[in-house]
Amino acid sequence: MAETTTRPRVAVLTAPGEGRPPGLEALEPEAALQIAETAEQLATALREADILLVTDFRTGLLREAWPAARHLRWVHAASAGVDALCFPELVDSDIPLTNARGVFDAPIAEYALGLMLAFAKDLPATLEHQRKRRWFHRDNERLAGKRLLVVGAGSIGRAIGRLAKVVGMAVEGVASTSRPGDADFPTIHGVDGLATALANADYVVAAAPLTARTRGLFGTETFAAMKPGARFINVGRGPVVQTDALVAALHDGRLAGAALDVFEMEPLPEEHPLWAMPQVIVSPHMAGDVHGWREALGAQFVANFRRWRAGEPLENVVDKSRMTTG
Amino acid sequence: MAETTTRPRVAVLTAPGEGRPPGLEALEPEAALQIAETAEQLATALREADILLVTDFRTGLLREAWPAARHLRWVHAASAGVDALCFPELVDSDIPLTNARGVFDAPIAEYALGLMLAFAKDLPATLEHQRKRRWFHRDNERLAGKRLLVVGAGSIGRAIGRLAKVVGMAVEGVASTSRPGDADFPTIHGVDGLATALANADYVVAAAPLTARTRGLFGTETFAAMKPGARFINVGRGPVVQTDALVAALHDGRLAGAALDVFEMEPLPEEHPLWAMPQVIVSPHMAGDVHGWREALGAQFVANFRRWRAGEPLENVVDKSRMTTG
Repeated sequence: MAETTTRPRVAVLTAPGEGRPPGLEALEPEAALQIAETAEQLATALREADILLVTDFRTGLLREAWPAARHLRWVHAASAGVDALCFPELVDSDIPLTNARGVFDAPIAEYALGLMLAFAKDLPATLEHQRKRRWFHRDNERLAGKRLLVVGAGSIGRAIGRLAKVVGMAVEGVASTSRPGDADFPTIHGVDGLATALANADYVVAAAPLTARTRGLFGTETFAAMKPGARFINVGRGPVVQTDALVAALHDGRLAGAALDVFEMEPLPEEHPLWAMPQVIVSPHMAGDVHGWREALGAQFVANFRRWRAGEPLENVVDKSRMTTG
Repeated sequence: MAETTTRPRVAVLTAPGEGRPPGLEALEPEAALQIAETAEQLATALREADILLVTDFRTGLLREAWPAARHLRWVHAASAGVDALCFPELVDSDIPLTNARGVFDAPIAEYALGLMLAFAKDLPATLEHQRKRRWFHRDNERLAGKRLLVVGAGSIGRAIGRLAKVVGMAVEGVASTSRPGDADFPTIHGVDGLATALANADYVVAAAPLTARTRGLFGTETFAAMKPGARFINVGRGPVVQTDALVAALHDGRLAGAALDVFEMEPLPEEHPLWAMPQVIVSPHMAGDVHGWREALGAQFVANFRRWRAGEPLENVVDKSRMTTG
């Protein structure tokens, strides 16, 4: 069993009942996987683990078990957002954190484009008329020529911008700080210039990471700064939006519509008013989840694992300095 | 009033109560417009008319009044499809027929893309779950990489193909006869090769004109030739599809979905089974009707009128030899 001892130990925090995530079969000869679904299993697995792979984001569980992680040399989050891992002991440590950058980019971009076209072509109303067997012609809208502001200039935001551009939209981006435009965004506003940037946008898509800076970014004042009749789409992180302020902006007609794939509380509670608003599209955090996404996440970890073992630099290392926990 | 007599007389066949179509105000100094909403008005207007502009398609009315049209030198259809004008007296005459080619291309392409994305992202089911306040995550599909077959290689079909291509779909076309591929369609099948072409397509969009050759083109055998699980979209002309065969292909699961903007009978009768099929999207012949479409049709006629008056060649002359009336 000498070989076993040389295999890196990988603790895998998964959701209860999930078992070994798909795509990790290939690792069995190269790594000792220890699946952890409970607090006890996690504490045990972390004691010896070289690597932690997180596919479930019960932050409390991980933070509690964290002191056991004495040998940990790498944490990988099988997700685009890493906010759930944003506790000081991890953020302040020297342990590199990587994420699933890339896997969800193009799927979420397609999803956002689908939502914009659904608004432009009034598809939800068409389906409601269909349900009532009503033939009711309306004029609809072009999407080409409309202005899109993408809030979040990471890989997902950029994929959204690129796709919107090829269908003829005029696209600008918002990043943490303003910077020169590039191939994806001819103009990149800083978040401090958000209100100004919002004033001209027909569509606003939020695809920003959740940080201390973006939490609650879309509140009463932000929505008031939007162009009357604009549509707001959130495919990023729920708590970036102050939901009550959004509901109010929709009620008073400032916004013509909103499509939300993520929420401050998920699942969205059954009694929440958003479900029943005709100008709102509610989807259950599925924008990036195209068939095979779990396997793609597994394959991405396997590829990074092999880099790590070969002493090569890890891909998709998160800049933890931006994960302020305040 | 000498000037008046030199103004060309334009008979305008419009729907009852519609009045002068928008965008024709500019013509008043240059042409004598005579709006016709009834059979009598049409017969009167046609007696002296140099030009007939048709914005309403009550074929019987026009064919009946046709013998009065002794001075007619040009007929313009303010629509993409000209099938309603396809009666022998007009087709066999030397009078040029023009249409609204171009006006609806990009709007319909966006509409078709929106429908394909709605299928790929399972948007109708999402809206149905929303209506029931159900949080129900599903995996969805990529659109990029999927194969699209566009049936109809006119300007609308080409606009659909171009838009699908820029979002990453693999696109082929079907025209009346097979021909070398071009910038829009790398492969163009003839309609006699339709069954073969259908076998590989994940999405099939019908955007063909209604002719003797395309009437009922999509019937039992055609649907049987489609790839299992494919989606069918009709944004062209309703009678290109044998609706009963489509309903059967949906019922037996051969097709995973259909989105129909046009129907054999419009409005779609209230009792028709299509309304209630969950995998079907019914819309009321509005795919191309973006805000301003009536004005755009008017402006297009005005521009062609000025060409005609200046002795320049008319634009968008329809090849009447392909309007077989059999």
